Amino acid sequence: MDSKIEPRVGTAFDREMMQRCLTLARRALGRTAPNPLVGAVVVQDGKIVGEGFHPGAGQPHAEVFALKAAGDRAQGATVYVSLEPCNHYGRTPPCTEALIAAGVAKVVVGMVDPNPLVAGGGVARLRSAGIEVVVGVEEADCRQLNEGFIHRMVYQRPFGIFKYAMTLDGKIATTSGHSAWITNPAAREEVQQLRIACDAIIVGGNTVRIDNPRLTIRQIDAPNPLRVVMSRTLDLPTTAHLWQTETVSTLVMTQAGANPDMQMLLRDRGVEILELDSLTPTAAMAHLYQRGCLSVLWECGGTLAAEAIAQGTVQKIFAFIAPKIIGGSTAPTPVGDLGFTQMTQAITLERVQWRTVGSDCLMEGYLPSRESGVGSRESGDKGDKGEES
Amino acid sequence: MDSKIEPRVGTAFDREMMQRCLTLARRALGRTAPNPLVGAVVVQDGKIVGEGFHPGAGQPHAEVFALKAAGDRAQGATVYVSLEPCNHYGRTPPCTEALIAAGVAKVVVGMVDPNPLVAGGGVARLRSAGIEVVVGVEEADCRQLNEGFIHRMVYQRPFGIFKYAMTLDGKIATTSGHSAWITNPAAREEVQQLRIACDAIIVGGNTVRIDNPRLTIRQIDAPNPLRVVMSRTLDLPTTAHLWQTETVSTLVMTQAGANPDMQMLLRDRGVEILELDSLTPTAAMAHLYQRGCLSVLWECGGTLAAEAIAQGTVQKIFAFIAPKIIGGSTAPTPVGDLGFTQMTQAITLERVQWRTVGSDCLMEGYLPSRESGVGSRESGDKGDKGEES
Repeated sequence: MDSKIEPRVGTAFDREMMQRCLTLARRALGRTAPNPLVGAVVVQDGKIVGEGFHPGAGQPHAEVFALKAAGDRAQGATVYVSLEPCNHYGRTPPCTEALIAAGVAKVVVGMVDPNPLVAGGGVARLRSAGIEVVVGVEEADCRQLNEGFIHRMVYQRPFGIFKYAMTLDGKIATTSGHSAWITNPAAREEVQQLRIACDAIIVGGNTVRIDNPRLTIRQIDAPNPLRVVMSRTLDLPTTAHLWQTETVSTLVMTQAGANPDMQMLLRDRGVEILELDSLTPTAAMAHLYQRGCLSVLWECGGTLAAEAIAQGTVQKIFAFIAPKIIGGSTAPTPVGDLGFTQMTQAITLERVQWRTVGSDCLMEGYLPSRESGVGSRESGDKGDKGEES
Repeated sequence: MDSKIEPRVGTAFDREMMQRCLTLARRALGRTAPNPLVGAVVVQDGKIVGEGFHPGAGQPHAEVFALKAAGDRAQGATVYVSLEPCNHYGRTPPCTEALIAAGVAKVVVGMVDPNPLVAGGGVARLRSAGIEVVVGVEEADCRQLNEGFIHRMVYQRPFGIFKYAMTLDGKIATTSGHSAWITNPAAREEVQQLRIACDAIIVGGNTVRIDNPRLTIRQIDAPNPLRVVMSRTLDLPTTAHLWQTETVSTLVMTQAGANPDMQMLLRDRGVEILELDSLTPTAAMAHLYQRGCLSVLWECGGTLAAEAIAQGTVQKIFAFIAPKIIGGSTAPTPVGDLGFTQMTQAITLERVQWRTVGSDCLMEGYLPSRESGVGSRESGDKGDKGEES
């Protein structure tokens, strides 16, 4: 993205250790909200003597686990941690104090805290205690792993991901609404991994009526995101896979006062109902922010997707494209009306990556930050590490 | 495609020489119809002593040029040629006799003649004259270069290629019909190269009315394909870039008796008019076959594209996908109605290749031969080279 070439921070060994931190951090994928994913490694004499990751809110931070595993070998060691150690008393004591107390010699940090109010505080505290600190090793990867957390922290709302699958001729279903299956099994497995990394999945009422999805994670022991249905009228089927709430929760968001009978029926099945004064993507995301969601996956049809994009609640798109032709001049397409009449008005994605998944193609890309409705911090904050060197 | 692993034919040097033949052959891209693209190389003592390619119908074949360049050095030489030397008197004498007369020791052939009535005849003639013959070196590449010629020979109709550009949300234009530009300049340059390789480009009346395309080749000295408009009603603008026929020809195909005034106006501008009893993709391709076209490019909108696919006049698809979102629930998509209601009915493409072109993605793939309305020769004739070894 940046035209100036930035030298890589740290040695090859440093980068290897930081990648190890990221691998550890990912073990808690989908479980840490509203906290970030963090991994830590303690290295003594070039060997890993302790490892840890943050398993979720209310539990100790990654550094604490890693220091505990290292025991006395933390003395004079180098600690690698993917996110700046905290320097405040929250549910747990500050990690900076734990690092100082353990007598570590050096701390290598992937990225500073994304909260602008506390960013750099942990680094400063460690340095004031005489510990050598390096910041920005594998920073891009560290930021990507926590892009949901960073977005939530900076903008006070969840990171929105819009995922869809379409045919090579741009359809997400046939003219009759049938859509199983567009993509191949490998692509559907990727969707499972994407869901695991998110805290909630939103669909519209139409998706429930036509597709009757489960939106569950097949992998045993993996976390299930909250399943969310947005429906103004609650004109929904009385039986649906989403109303089976024994193991995975479902939240239906609707307009205040909508269809009391259906509300009662759904509550009887264990579905949570939330009445909003105005049922919009913005209001839905504001609520999910309050619940602590970091990343929210939009798996909706074109009409709701267009609203979600127009209201700036989508930051990233995952588009699966299958090499098949279904045809249909009235078959539904991924994005409904955005009000654009000239091709030059199109939203051009950034940081685009195309890759094949089996016979299908997957595009991952980011909406420009002007489309997110706020200024660009994500593309402008690469300079952070400059302060630290 | 084939599950059994076939050993590569020839030595690394043989393959290098055959690739050189293909490079030479490509110099006549778009100029040889109804003849194939052929290149030839004469090698004496491991060195190239003569090269040639077939420049177009009525002119000598590749082998003749290569032998002429080699002169006396053809005696005892090895000749590489991408297509089996002809063994019959056409507009030129048989190349087999020229090779025999030149005293060559060995002939390495890329692929046998695709005409089943004469296939292998040239090889047999050479062998009967005591010349060593190897067949099938870089055969896949040789076949791909002449896929239009092969298809025309086997099925007695041109090879149809459907090319389109769409946004990431499956639209080929905005709701108002505006489409300039969906793809980036690198992708548009690829389209130019694709056009050069084709003998005709077909659009529908709607494309003329809305896009007013030129369909010309910008590259100086490159051949321009015939520009073809299919229009039942001739309800076309009186001025259009396609009616400028000084340097590039335009053919308008219409229904017999349609709009005589417009026919006269167009003829006055130098546009050729063809009245067909039934204006269908099949009839259009039958006519273009008669004119000698090898490859025909469909650059039409979704309605005509759907007809062309349904009638088996499309064998290959080039789909450019730009990472941008335009939206529009009524915006046009690449393929209109095919009558499918279940996703399982979708036409799944074969031999699919995805690659990036600048920021865009290009998919090249083939329709399964059942969709072409005829049995699969193309996927079943890999065994040809078995006969030759």
